[in-house]
Amino acid sequence: MIDKYGGRPVVPSRGEERPLGLAEISLTGGFWAAMQTTNAAATLPHCETWLERLGWLANFDRVADGTTGPDRPGLSFSDSEAYKLLEAMCWEYGRTGDPAVDAAVRQLTARIGRAQDPDGYLNTCYGHAHQPPRYHDLEGGHELYCAGHLLQAAVARLRTTGADDLVEVARRAADHVCDTFTTHGLCGHPEIELGLVELGRALGEERYLAQAQRFLDRRGHRTLRDIPFGRAYFQDDMPIRTATAWRGHAVRALYLAAAAVDVAVERADRELLAALERQWEHTVARRTYLTGGMGSRHHDESFGEDWELPPARAYSETCAAVASIMVAWRLYLATGRVRYADLIERTFFNVVATAPRADGRAFFYANPLHQRVAGPAPDEDAVSPRASVGARAPWFHAACCPTNLARTLATWHLYAATAGERTLTLLQYASARITATLGDGRRIGVEVATDYPHDGLVTVRVVAPPPGAVALRLRVPPWAQGAVLEDAGRPQPVAPGFAVVDRELAAGDLIRLRLPMPARFTWPDPRIDAVRGCVAVERGPLVLCAESLDLPAGVSLDDVVVDPAVAPTERDGQVLVRGRLRAADSPGWPYTGDPANHPAGAALTLRLVPYHRWAERGPSAMRVWLPTPP
Amino acid sequence: MIDKYGGRPVVPSRGEERPLGLAEISLTGGFWAAMQTTNAAATLPHCETWLERLGWLANFDRVADGTTGPDRPGLSFSDSEAYKLLEAMCWEYGRTGDPAVDAAVRQLTARIGRAQDPDGYLNTCYGHAHQPPRYHDLEGGHELYCAGHLLQAAVARLRTTGADDLVEVARRAADHVCDTFTTHGLCGHPEIELGLVELGRALGEERYLAQAQRFLDRRGHRTLRDIPFGRAYFQDDMPIRTATAWRGHAVRALYLAAAAVDVAVERADRELLAALERQWEHTVARRTYLTGGMGSRHHDESFGEDWELPPARAYSETCAAVASIMVAWRLYLATGRVRYADLIERTFFNVVATAPRADGRAFFYANPLHQRVAGPAPDEDAVSPRASVGARAPWFHAACCPTNLARTLATWHLYAATAGERTLTLLQYASARITATLGDGRRIGVEVATDYPHDGLVTVRVVAPPPGAVALRLRVPPWAQGAVLEDAGRPQPVAPGFAVVDRELAAGDLIRLRLPMPARFTWPDPRIDAVRGCVAVERGPLVLCAESLDLPAGVSLDDVVVDPAVAPTERDGQVLVRGRLRAADSPGWPYTGDPANHPAGAALTLRLVPYHRWAERGPSAMRVWLPTPP
Repeated sequence: MIDKYGGRPVVPSRGEERPLGLAEISLTGGFWAAMQTTNAAATLPHCETWLERLGWLANFDRVADGTTGPDRPGLSFSDSEAYKLLEAMCWEYGRTGDPAVDAAVRQLTARIGRAQDPDGYLNTCYGHAHQPPRYHDLEGGHELYCAGHLLQAAVARLRTTGADDLVEVARRAADHVCDTFTTHGLCGHPEIELGLVELGRALGEERYLAQAQRFLDRRGHRTLRDIPFGRAYFQDDMPIRTATAWRGHAVRALYLAAAAVDVAVERADRELLAALERQWEHTVARRTYLTGGMGSRHHDESFGEDWELPPARAYSETCAAVASIMVAWRLYLATGRVRYADLIERTFFNVVATAPRADGRAFFYANPLHQRVAGPAPDEDAVSPRASVGARAPWFHAACCPTNLARTLATWHLYAATAGERTLTLLQYASARITATLGDGRRIGVEVATDYPHDGLVTVRVVAPPPGAVALRLRVPPWAQGAVLEDAGRPQPVAPGFAVVDRELAAGDLIRLRLPMPARFTWPDPRIDAVRGCVAVERGPLVLCAESLDLPAGVSLDDVVVDPAVAPTERDGQVLVRGRLRAADSPGWPYTGDPANHPAGAALTLRLVPYHRWAERGPSAMRVWLPTPP
Repeated sequence: MIDKYGGRPVVPSRGEERPLGLAEISLTGGFWAAMQTTNAAATLPHCETWLERLGWLANFDRVADGTTGPDRPGLSFSDSEAYKLLEAMCWEYGRTGDPAVDAAVRQLTARIGRAQDPDGYLNTCYGHAHQPPRYHDLEGGHELYCAGHLLQAAVARLRTTGADDLVEVARRAADHVCDTFTTHGLCGHPEIELGLVELGRALGEERYLAQAQRFLDRRGHRTLRDIPFGRAYFQDDMPIRTATAWRGHAVRALYLAAAAVDVAVERADRELLAALERQWEHTVARRTYLTGGMGSRHHDESFGEDWELPPARAYSETCAAVASIMVAWRLYLATGRVRYADLIERTFFNVVATAPRADGRAFFYANPLHQRVAGPAPDEDAVSPRASVGARAPWFHAACCPTNLARTLATWHLYAATAGERTLTLLQYASARITATLGDGRRIGVEVATDYPHDGLVTVRVVAPPPGAVALRLRVPPWAQGAVLEDAGRPQPVAPGFAVVDRELAAGDLIRLRLPMPARFTWPDPRIDAVRGCVAVERGPLVLCAESLDLPAGVSLDDVVVDPAVAPTERDGQVLVRGRLRAADSPGWPYTGDPANHPAGAALTLRLVPYHRWAERGPSAMRVWLPTPP
């Protein structure tokens, strides 16, 4: 682990919980360790290959060489993919210390740095020969958005290896932004705020934090031009302080909210923090998919209205899941409330783990909960439109998701535990080694062993006990009815929330948390119109789904109903539910005066698979929400 | 009536039924007569005012004067709005003979004609100073689309007043198209095919028909460039002959299908006609809203997959309804099958009548069946984005719908009846005067009196009986259970389809059709996921809806369920259903292990209004599909 500087993506200067750094926690195996390995071995090189292949990296060379032309490849925000890849590489180097990754960081940094203008402006799309002028289109130009990602990459470098060229490039870019946008202007895509706050924290630059706050305060006063999607698209319709729910473009809304938590924490602005907690609560209660996914509309990639959660046309963008985790993580650190960690788990297992193909070389951009028709076989050589569904694609015209996944997976373990004054809290379960420093300065070392999420047994072995009593807290997810905490061989029932062991520990002490994981039916709020009359099946933290590949030949997933009176069963590690076929098709006008014209047909047993693995066996129709008989 | 040339929009050279011309039928009062009056008095001038105000008409002047600049107002297809308005004016002049309308036609024609290039090309967006070159973007340029609408306007002029300058302009444009696209090329938006066929029919120009057929045969072979929406967007993914359902952009798909019926009929191509009938059947059974609306997606304005019919995010574009009627009308004329007239009625009453505001000066572009949140009050002075919902808007950036409504409403009466060899068929009910020539040359005159759709009694009085026996057919809609035909005072039950009186008629004979119209519940096919567990209420041909304006203060439409065991009632002309409130809100995660956690609350009576009048009393939430208790 390379953690000269505390290696953490988010380091608030106050809050209920302190995030652990790279030196304090590492995974030793299991579900997420495997994903991190694939991310490092496959996804990072895959992203770099595509960035090179499409000329998005060469854009930096052309600016440096003064050879820009009118035919620049890539969308206006393609620079940001290089920065997110760079950020992912920095965290990955921090995680493993692989010198090849460090070399890649240096090489990419050099290439990017050459493209920086003398005044600190750095963007390959504007302001050079044959290009539109700088900042002529704040609504759609993405210049500050790109700068924000550059700053986040620099934070990763700074917190893993310390100041270097990348950090200098970012500092110049940040200074340029502060100089240019002192009195007015803001970006159509929030992100610069996140970069400024964190770089400010990392460098101790109050000026960057002040600029982030300025951008935040400036938004919501309708100073951006109106667009057909409306100003809510970029959250310029009302100040974030007065909003009641997240709305408009989901990724924009969530990046903004994450930055707003940062500012609220740094400024000890309780009113703003409370507003953000209320917005989170409203959005999670009424605008969030069972998977944790957010954003219902393809049209403008936006949240919809309350209860607007169509499973088949769910957008549930991968980047929105990443952004939702960023928000929830900051809210958790600020407040210590377990509900944020609950949503983080759900989103990790059911969106973040769903998006990449098992080999790490293709990705879902949208994550619908229902695929009506088996999608196409993926074309490994093609760039896909963003709304492409039914098959993971190797790359996209707007390629925000792969690099966002890469940087998130590289830091997954940093979401697994936090420290308090005299507490160590385990939030996400994975086999891991933890040696954390508590708020009171004591150090504690534990090893976690688990086969989670396949199995609900989590064993914590005390390796290095601190002197005196300490509180070890283990999160009990809300679905874990009947959970049992076993301390020194004594089992006790524990309710959802935090199960606490508060005592003096000894080396070798074993603490076991048993989370029952029977497959279970889940019903939606009846106001969610799109899934009325349906049930879903979950097991532990995993949402399950039915794939048409598992149906008898000739049977359509459209014609299957399940019987919610018979609990799901498990056999040979597979979850099964009792189903029935609907009677055959009735062609013609589909609206009739008779509700009972579709009698039930033959019985069948429906095999379910984890949602995050759907479409791995080839094109398939799929459903998370399963209709029940009327 | 001005009907020197048989005044009908569509005149197939063969088919089971012959459309009546302007001289054969006119409305004498009622629902559609009132809409025609408003269309003439308000909508036509409204459209002309906006076209002038936005500079879309001045675009023609600038081309004529050689003063085009880089800043042309309007989208690339804005010329087509002038042509559709011109078409509407021509039909309106034919309907009423109002000399002011004729003068407006002449004036607009002169202005348009001046912009025509010497070789017949006519488009204000391409090929002149500061403009992109002609035909450089067949996928998105809309040049042939615009030309098609010009041709349709000329057909309207030709069939109402005969050849004049407009017809000459169109003829030159059509010749230019035939000369330019002899061997390859087709337009991203089908429409030219419709214009060519009908102008060919009207002028006896076989060459135009041949060109339409060429365009038709050429489409579906993936010669248009691929776009992010995919080639299905403009139906270039597979030949129309081999498709099984309509797909892609709904208006494009339906204009293409209408033209394909025309070509199939002219070429006596039974295979093609049969394919189109199958596509219609599939689309109506699985991809059509209760209102008759088509097109489920905002994102690409497309049909979705089978059973993808979300009510709140329904796109159901007004133009798609117009286009669906065009297809169904041609299929009816070709085959005589009553089902096409059934869908036409449904679409007229529940989409076409819904789109314009009562005053004819604002319009819905999208026609969702569920409005979650009361929309904004309309801004009478603003141009709206197309996806604007919740309030009818005076105009749109892409303003296809208002002028499409205008031309359709001006010709509504021409869909009401047809003639056969020895039959007169009444398809749509309205008070009307009909003097038709049958296929065998005999003439028959009748007067229809009715208060339809408010009342189901239709009285036909024979005014001018033909010599010998004749068949008078009256359409019995599929919803009219218990319909009774009363001929010479003798009632007999009649089933949905055609009720026939076949005898020698005498002047003064009265034939009465009684269509029972109790409000009724309608259930959806259980495969339509988005409305599972809901019922709708219909009365006669009208779909009804609930508006939040009619709820007690503080009650949300989200919290109302209706009891389908209690039939709807009527009181003082209002339809009422028994409802119940759901128990109060439960904030927090909306997916639970308990299906019964939302007990029913207080009873209430829910007042329903015709869907076509929703949002007329001000912003309101609205539902067509009403949830039932689990």
